[in-house]
Amino acid sequence: MSLQESAPSLAVVGVTGAVGQEFLSVLSDRDFPYSSVKMLASKRSAGKRVAFDGREYTVEELTAESFDGVDIALFSAGGSISKEFGPLAAEKGTIVVDNSSAFRMVDGVPLVIPEVNPEAMKGIKVGMGKGALIANPNCSTIICLMAVTPLHHHAKVKRMVVSTYQAASGAGAAAMEELIQQTREVLEGKPPTCNIFGQQYAFNLFSHNAPILDNGYNEEEMKLVKETRKIWNDTEVKVTATCIRVPVMRAHAESVNLQFENPLDENTAREILKKAPGVYIIDDRASNTFPTPLDVSNKDDVAVGRIRRDVSQDGNFGLDIFVCGDQIRKGAALNAVQIAEMLL
Amino acid sequence: MSLQESAPSLAVVGVTGAVGQEFLSVLSDRDFPYSSVKMLASKRSAGKRVAFDGREYTVEELTAESFDGVDIALFSAGGSISKEFGPLAAEKGTIVVDNSSAFRMVDGVPLVIPEVNPEAMKGIKVGMGKGALIANPNCSTIICLMAVTPLHHHAKVKRMVVSTYQAASGAGAAAMEELIQQTREVLEGKPPTCNIFGQQYAFNLFSHNAPILDNGYNEEEMKLVKETRKIWNDTEVKVTATCIRVPVMRAHAESVNLQFENPLDENTAREILKKAPGVYIIDDRASNTFPTPLDVSNKDDVAVGRIRRDVSQDGNFGLDIFVCGDQIRKGAALNAVQIAEMLL
Repeated sequence: MSLQESAPSLAVVGVTGAVGQEFLSVLSDRDFPYSSVKMLASKRSAGKRVAFDGREYTVEELTAESFDGVDIALFSAGGSISKEFGPLAAEKGTIVVDNSSAFRMVDGVPLVIPEVNPEAMKGIKVGMGKGALIANPNCSTIICLMAVTPLHHHAKVKRMVVSTYQAASGAGAAAMEELIQQTREVLEGKPPTCNIFGQQYAFNLFSHNAPILDNGYNEEEMKLVKETRKIWNDTEVKVTATCIRVPVMRAHAESVNLQFENPLDENTAREILKKAPGVYIIDDRASNTFPTPLDVSNKDDVAVGRIRRDVSQDGNFGLDIFVCGDQIRKGAALNAVQIAEMLL
Repeated sequence: MSLQESAPSLAVVGVTGAVGQEFLSVLSDRDFPYSSVKMLASKRSAGKRVAFDGREYTVEELTAESFDGVDIALFSAGGSISKEFGPLAAEKGTIVVDNSSAFRMVDGVPLVIPEVNPEAMKGIKVGMGKGALIANPNCSTIICLMAVTPLHHHAKVKRMVVSTYQAASGAGAAAMEELIQQTREVLEGKPPTCNIFGQQYAFNLFSHNAPILDNGYNEEEMKLVKETRKIWNDTEVKVTATCIRVPVMRAHAESVNLQFENPLDENTAREILKKAPGVYIIDDRASNTFPTPLDVSNKDDVAVGRIRRDVSQDGNFGLDIFVCGDQIRKGAALNAVQIAEMLL
């Protein structure tokens, strides 16, 4: 039973969204202890009913007063909501775990993957009487670093080239619905409805829809570059990324090429990954069985495969790997709830 | 009118397949001159009728005698058919343009992308009274090198990291049909029919189905590595690739990271690509418009975009680009017909 009087009071902000719904599912699955929970969303969604842990709750409109007496708030309602209400909540003594990009690169805000850099949130606990902001990294970064960090700790990554295969879910529930609708339309020979991305997504793929920056990278790509440095506390590591949206529902895949400072052969890499928390290996060359987005959909752990010595580098200083992770779960809700668990 | 008495006699081997059909369409579109054409396929397909250039032809069974009097034969019926009948045809004086991988890495067999290395087939012409084997490169290699070679000529590629997003068409017409069938089934909540790949392809992706070699790469990936070296006549260039099949119908995409010997800034790269034959640029950062598989489907030219300085490399010694090309057309049939045109 996770409803306990002495347990922390929770709030879920953006509870009607894809990640918000997954927050509830993960909290429940993991028996997260709580004394109360507020279901918060925009005015538009206020009054809706959501189910959690065998009860029904009414969604309340998010206001400045929403956080009175709330110990932990999980936010996933977009960057502007986080910017408006996150600091407000933290001032009132709430510890905010924020899934948006609003505070990720802000100095002093821990950016945390619990398996990777738990030390970044040292000293932040419920019951210390102090609010705080903690940022959940971007989904692509989490999924990539879950597999790469154990290798990095062994051989130090010098440079990483990432190409992503990103699911619809990263753009929210409406994008997932549009992918299904478009697919039906294309199969029926009708023109596809393009409300979310402005182009055909069914049986197609396209460069990630995040805004393009002055350097020609899109924001999604630069998140991988910058968040990796912050999470690893390593200003030297070189990262480049190309982020592509593919017609897959809810799990991302990433092709990752690694250049190491120190040698790391592929068998050692496999042994390291076998022991890595939150990671499992699918790598059967004989049957051509490797990770796919479907393997990890609705799963907690990140799958890694295609582990092989990079033939374009001399000796054992390079590896190619292929990683898949559920974008909504480990890429967002699960990671945030794991952060919340560390607050107890 | 491309039917001319003095023109070469043609044969199309594997005429009922996806590439075979595209051979006919490209020959017709380009007004390829011919005096006669034999439509060849396996016994199973013999007797079928195919349309070409306003006439109907009966498909004949491929035999050792099929090539008597044939000047140019376009082969796309798989490696084992090429191995059995290609050398036979060449001995009889036919110039074979082979789309399979059978002869690509054989010493003395030119491996040709007409825009890239036409010199490799110097001296091979219809009317010289001599047969020959000429190999069409793998689709991923052709599409990649169409965009990369002009940059290579300017700044010399030292190392190239490729991640592919490959369409169903690369596995033939049946794979394209299975993708459609599976997609319908998944939308209807039925289990997907998995005859071709043995796993769900609809709303999923997976490591390319080519056999895995001892070094952990699949054959498709090593084609990119080895064919690039042969086509560029450069044994030093370092290439690594990760080849992934995505639920897209008939055009491949490739994310390509380049490391150069000499500096090449992104504006110069754009100028070079603007002038490159068979290549066009889709690269509008303001509107987030970049190449997609649909842009190039049923098109001759390869589209390139996301042209940007690689932030993981110092100075102007690196670029990231994203390339899309029609797998059946430039990746196979068009390239082969262009080779045939050079024989005249």
